[in-house]
Amino acid sequence: MTDRTLALTERLLRLKSTTPDDAGCQDEMAERLAPLGFKLEKMRFGDVDNLWARRGNRGPVLCFAGHTDVVPTGPLGQWHSNPFEPTHRDGLLYGRGAADMKASLAAFVTAIEDFVAEYPEHNGSIALLITSDEEGSAVHGTVKVIEALRQRGEAIDYCIVGEPTSAEVFGDTIKNGRRGSLSGHLLIQGIQGHIAYPHLAENPIHLAAPALAELAAIRWDEGNAFFPPTTWQISNIHAGTGATNVIPGELDLKFNFRFSTASTVEGLKQQVHDTLDRHGLRYQLDWTLHGKPYLTLPGALSDAISASIESVCGARPELSTTGGTSDGRFIAEWCPQVVEFGPINATIHKLNECVAIDDLPKLSAIYKGVMERLLC
Amino acid sequence: MTDRTLALTERLLRLKSTTPDDAGCQDEMAERLAPLGFKLEKMRFGDVDNLWARRGNRGPVLCFAGHTDVVPTGPLGQWHSNPFEPTHRDGLLYGRGAADMKASLAAFVTAIEDFVAEYPEHNGSIALLITSDEEGSAVHGTVKVIEALRQRGEAIDYCIVGEPTSAEVFGDTIKNGRRGSLSGHLLIQGIQGHIAYPHLAENPIHLAAPALAELAAIRWDEGNAFFPPTTWQISNIHAGTGATNVIPGELDLKFNFRFSTASTVEGLKQQVHDTLDRHGLRYQLDWTLHGKPYLTLPGALSDAISASIESVCGARPELSTTGGTSDGRFIAEWCPQVVEFGPINATIHKLNECVAIDDLPKLSAIYKGVMERLLC
Repeated sequence: MTDRTLALTERLLRLKSTTPDDAGCQDEMAERLAPLGFKLEKMRFGDVDNLWARRGNRGPVLCFAGHTDVVPTGPLGQWHSNPFEPTHRDGLLYGRGAADMKASLAAFVTAIEDFVAEYPEHNGSIALLITSDEEGSAVHGTVKVIEALRQRGEAIDYCIVGEPTSAEVFGDTIKNGRRGSLSGHLLIQGIQGHIAYPHLAENPIHLAAPALAELAAIRWDEGNAFFPPTTWQISNIHAGTGATNVIPGELDLKFNFRFSTASTVEGLKQQVHDTLDRHGLRYQLDWTLHGKPYLTLPGALSDAISASIESVCGARPELSTTGGTSDGRFIAEWCPQVVEFGPINATIHKLNECVAIDDLPKLSAIYKGVMERLLC
Repeated sequence: MTDRTLALTERLLRLKSTTPDDAGCQDEMAERLAPLGFKLEKMRFGDVDNLWARRGNRGPVLCFAGHTDVVPTGPLGQWHSNPFEPTHRDGLLYGRGAADMKASLAAFVTAIEDFVAEYPEHNGSIALLITSDEEGSAVHGTVKVIEALRQRGEAIDYCIVGEPTSAEVFGDTIKNGRRGSLSGHLLIQGIQGHIAYPHLAENPIHLAAPALAELAAIRWDEGNAFFPPTTWQISNIHAGTGATNVIPGELDLKFNFRFSTASTVEGLKQQVHDTLDRHGLRYQLDWTLHGKPYLTLPGALSDAISASIESVCGARPELSTTGGTSDGRFIAEWCPQVVEFGPINATIHKLNECVAIDDLPKLSAIYKGVMERLLC
């Protein structure tokens, strides 16, 4: 008999839910939750489908959060099988979204089914917060749902985000936080001129070089027990039109901070401005904050997940805060304990995305184990 | 009666001699020189017409050098009159090549006509070296003529290049040298990676910044009595594909030296390599030498031109080595004294190029005065 988590993962993989199209995934999940006594709320904002589901009226509230949308497939010819036709090869299940994160969505549902069957009168409440835009702009997704719940005074105590966090071996890593991401678009002004007459021009590349060397050498912070030191990287630098006899008038530069809770947004911005100003540069600098860092200190939720993983996999996971951002950053502003856990992430956003078939029932069992530890 | 220099300038302007097409200009000049006893040699190399003309077999040899080719017109709609139809407006003669350098070619011819009429038995020899590719690659022009003359042991003592050297007022500037031009195309290697994992990448922009800051601050030389200090300028810098989450793998940079006789090509190259090496950079650097610097110290030729200008214009010119390169750089490797003099250069290579009509007979008189001072 086919494993129920595998079967549901396959049903979800067949739905072409490229961001922000939910493509019926949330209905698929809702149909399974309704008979269990969940109160279901569809929350559509803009072109994004969101689902808020809750079983129980008491605290503590344990919420499973995730997204139904998947990133584009890339060149179809380079997939070994149709990315929307779940395919088994060598113990792996292939399909776009297999690891990020339809396996986790399926495991949420089957874990809840098993848990509710066993503990129909559990303590607290079980909730699900599902969006169809986590991979895109994320403007009308998790953020908007939280805003709606906040306005009516609804709160949650624990949140498990189903992001694929395992690195080498299933169950080896959970994320108890993420670094923040802050970008800058910097235009440094010079004065254009002929390269034979540099005294009539001001070369913005030359003006900028000492400041850039200084910024590249700054140690922004030392990190802390849970975060590596903040990093600053230039991703793009451009000046000059190709003409080799012209001193360009402007230098265009993009950079990004990945920052820890040891630094603040305002502190980082100030240090960049101070450096540019000290070098006497004329510039324009536009900032974009993609996400603040968040951190959940070891506590009830991380202990419950770690213990549940250990009982299923035989080893405790490592706590990590590395990698890109996730919707965890939004949830952490509202929920005191947020931890992310899911399958191995080696193939996410790549061609031939896959998940190990054997890991699916384990994932379901781990999520169920968390409910047992926090709601029984 | 129309001034003869003006009339010949107009005849030459009607010929559409865009590089490398001579369009009959050299024939026009040759027809005027033949009756004066010049020996004429057409030297065609590749698609370039060159003319070598000489009157006399003795030394010293005074050579007038110039080019019949003109740069493209640019958008015709932005010219106030047809660029190949010489037009008078407000005392100016408009046409592509009016200042650069058909007025000088015409003045060479009329000056020689007047001088030979007055001094048929002058000392030494008069020569002309005319090419139809000075504005282009210049591969089959002056360089090839000099090579041919060298091979048969022919030499010249003085050379006047008819480039438009006057800056504000006609006769205010002669060039007794030009700076050299040396370019570099630099690729600095890094290791591409995701911006969230900088420890797995090497950002070539960050690696390069301290070296670039150092290069931009170097005082390459102090110049000398005739040259301003050597300058180094980056014209283009590019890294990154636009993606803001990727650390680029390579930095692409173009730079140019304008250098004086106080530095050498090898010395400048070595200092750049030393700086890059000292910073431990992995890089590829391709060099292009556009022209070595040349300098004619004040002497018989510059004295003759200065005195001739003073007698015609009432003031002595300034000696200068600024500006771009000219064929003077090639001639100087073969001829001990090279000086450039011609009309005001404010409109060259621009829309609505023009020359002052009143300056044309003066230009002819100045060239004639040089012959009087050196060959009588």
